Amino acid sequence: MGDLVDRLMQGLPPEAVAVDPDVAAAYARDMAGFCAAGVPAVVVFPQTVEQVQHVLRTATELRVPVVPQGARTGLSGGANAVDGCIVLSLVKMDRILEIDPVNRLAVVEPGVVNAVLSRAAGEYGLAYPPDPSSWESCTIGGNIATGAGGLCCVKYGVTSEYVLGLDVVLADGRLLSTGRRTAKGVAGYDLTRLLVGSEGTLGVVVRAVLALRPEPAPPLVLAAEFGSTDAACAAVCEVMARGFTPSLMELMDATTVRAVNEMAAMGLPATTKALLLVAFDGPGQAAELAAVAELCRTAGATEVVPAEDRAESELLLQARRLALPALDRLGTTMIDDVAVPRSQLARMLAGVAQIAERSDLTIGVVSHAGDGNTHPVVVFDASDEQETARAERSFEEIMALGLELGGTVTGEHGIGLLKREWLARELGPVGLEVQRQIRSVFDPLGILNPGKTL
Amino acid sequence: MGDLVDRLMQGLPPEAVAVDPDVAAAYARDMAGFCAAGVPAVVVFPQTVEQVQHVLRTATELRVPVVPQGARTGLSGGANAVDGCIVLSLVKMDRILEIDPVNRLAVVEPGVVNAVLSRAAGEYGLAYPPDPSSWESCTIGGNIATGAGGLCCVKYGVTSEYVLGLDVVLADGRLLSTGRRTAKGVAGYDLTRLLVGSEGTLGVVVRAVLALRPEPAPPLVLAAEFGSTDAACAAVCEVMARGFTPSLMELMDATTVRAVNEMAAMGLPATTKALLLVAFDGPGQAAELAAVAELCRTAGATEVVPAEDRAESELLLQARRLALPALDRLGTTMIDDVAVPRSQLARMLAGVAQIAERSDLTIGVVSHAGDGNTHPVVVFDASDEQETARAERSFEEIMALGLELGGTVTGEHGIGLLKREWLARELGPVGLEVQRQIRSVFDPLGILNPGKTL
Repeated sequence: MGDLVDRLMQGLPPEAVAVDPDVAAAYARDMAGFCAAGVPAVVVFPQTVEQVQHVLRTATELRVPVVPQGARTGLSGGANAVDGCIVLSLVKMDRILEIDPVNRLAVVEPGVVNAVLSRAAGEYGLAYPPDPSSWESCTIGGNIATGAGGLCCVKYGVTSEYVLGLDVVLADGRLLSTGRRTAKGVAGYDLTRLLVGSEGTLGVVVRAVLALRPEPAPPLVLAAEFGSTDAACAAVCEVMARGFTPSLMELMDATTVRAVNEMAAMGLPATTKALLLVAFDGPGQAAELAAVAELCRTAGATEVVPAEDRAESELLLQARRLALPALDRLGTTMIDDVAVPRSQLARMLAGVAQIAERSDLTIGVVSHAGDGNTHPVVVFDASDEQETARAERSFEEIMALGLELGGTVTGEHGIGLLKREWLARELGPVGLEVQRQIRSVFDPLGILNPGKTL
Repeated sequence: MGDLVDRLMQGLPPEAVAVDPDVAAAYARDMAGFCAAGVPAVVVFPQTVEQVQHVLRTATELRVPVVPQGARTGLSGGANAVDGCIVLSLVKMDRILEIDPVNRLAVVEPGVVNAVLSRAAGEYGLAYPPDPSSWESCTIGGNIATGAGGLCCVKYGVTSEYVLGLDVVLADGRLLSTGRRTAKGVAGYDLTRLLVGSEGTLGVVVRAVLALRPEPAPPLVLAAEFGSTDAACAAVCEVMARGFTPSLMELMDATTVRAVNEMAAMGLPATTKALLLVAFDGPGQAAELAAVAELCRTAGATEVVPAEDRAESELLLQARRLALPALDRLGTTMIDDVAVPRSQLARMLAGVAQIAERSDLTIGVVSHAGDGNTHPVVVFDASDEQETARAERSFEEIMALGLELGGTVTGEHGIGLLKREWLARELGPVGLEVQRQIRSVFDPLGILNPGKTL
């Protein structure tokens, strides 16, 4: 280990190399519970591309595993250390290198925080749409590694749609440039999108060219309360089938609504079985909101509250923002991330309710309903071994249900350590083999984030 | 060869196997001029996935190259036969298997014609946006293989944005399923997008899950005439910098305008140096059109003609549709496909004009100006050897200029045979090596579309 640190120090300033056990422990894991984390040998904080290349070259020469990290807000253990590894933290490469309003793009280092980029783009009347819940702290590098989503995806898509090009340091230290600064381009295979969502297993992103969009109008929001999740899901399908494209369409189940009420006294009626929030941010937003309000009433909503202005809209969104904190107060939580075709949302929610009942557990479900992405949150008492076992089983049952309904085990959180066995089930043997071979092309020695994803 | 045909016949109906030399000749090439084409040993027209698997298994066993083909409307020789190959035509796998308005997706076989899908989606109030010029004849499989673009891309993006999942027969006959039917998903590497634009070198697409969008309103179009291309390009930049998102923004240079005038007597003034067409199809289209009309006047447009209705809009678009046919009438043509950052469009057009002058050639340029994608059309007398050599040289100079301006040698037509040497220049040595290794993962024997792209 002395040799490793010595070698790293040859290409890094002293303050960029941390061997203190407390620092190592602090950088050992992301925000996923229930995932193993090893003890890193060293944590490095490079500030230049050359320094990252030096770290990877050293790792290759000494055959030491490297675990790249952003802000460690991930929820699947993808950034957890393995024993004896180099933790490669990119948080100090945090410069916005360029914002170009004519070409509507930004060039950034990986450690730039999502919200910092969003605000900087806003100064040019532009927006960087992907908005994971952790947007105030998560980094663009981490967003790229996980293929992060968010609340806006029903209209604006996910991270993958906004990455035009990347500079990536490969396992052996070579620098690979992919993609382009142009709006279009088909020269060669799309390595850019192969790298997005690869969870640090193919290379280390050191620079990204990102597409920006014109900043939309502030959203107008409506809240609709339903007496059943089936009715709420039918409304979701009807909104999409009728050709609306909301900028947000979120669904909270009865358990979640109750938890939010208990935490913040939002005054949501106790009879509410499902709370649907729908927002529009385009030029026709007022008319669209009115039409969807009417549609919700026809679909059986017991109450429909369309916001009349920005302040009212913010108030309605507040209930959604409190959903996860409110569920977290009820006990230890495991958050799942299963996406199904939106036409299957009702069956997904009914299935999760059955799993909760069968397991004798509280499971609140918050859904990005517009894109069928559900976050069932399993609440349990971690000090109770049997209950913990039931919670883990229900978490697995939820993924099995998602696959059965034609969905995926992860809509936006990634595979990491948490869902490795499930990836094989979802991909099938041919897909798994091809993916393994592609990983070997990039990392023949298997030093990049070993044990994650595949 | 007798053996090859016998083996193919074991898994294909007789009418699906053509050995007639006239058929072979007819399927030898796509629409790219100036690209070599070999003589296929046999042309096959499978109708099922199993038949495609049989063809690939046979090809692997006998080490025979396979050239997949759609409607052969490609412009880079990517579908050209090589000597002794199996031409694998997918045109008889042309069923739309499903259109699902709630999940806004279509499931199609590769031989479905783009326009057929667009019309079928239209019956549900939905649209499949990518609209290459050949949309009335090109197939979805070909669109996926080349990563096709079109006129709508400035607002709606390219084929890659609309492919959710693929079934692909690999070189050895195995069936690989990639992607999903859900709006989101990050399980494993994004093989779907790796396959889009891979020009038949990684596998044969036999089924695609495509995202659809709500059908937009018919576009409202304005035409603006400028006294210089610089002024027109400045207007393009201003439109984008001011946050407009037109559904189409096309620019024709003086040479093209003249050619169109000569062909169709459109009555465009002879002094026009650049004709800009801008369209909007969203709820605020009339206001946006008026604002852009004003912007064009301020930017120095000599005349601005905003359409007042759909019929007038159609008339204005007619000039654009006639551009390539009009240039084709002037002689033999080579169409280039260089995309640059839109802020570099003026320099690109000025550079092409210089190349035309220096080469003593007519080069008309039609641009998807909104996304910086130019189509310089080099016109020459193919019976004149010296002029042909000058044309070929100017075609290359145009690509060099594009790269110099931070662009790509192909925005939407692909590499094929035409731009192979240029791909290496654009990717650089690291990128090229990684791409080659990925190709080997999918096709270790090198039987899939050999000699194309890399």
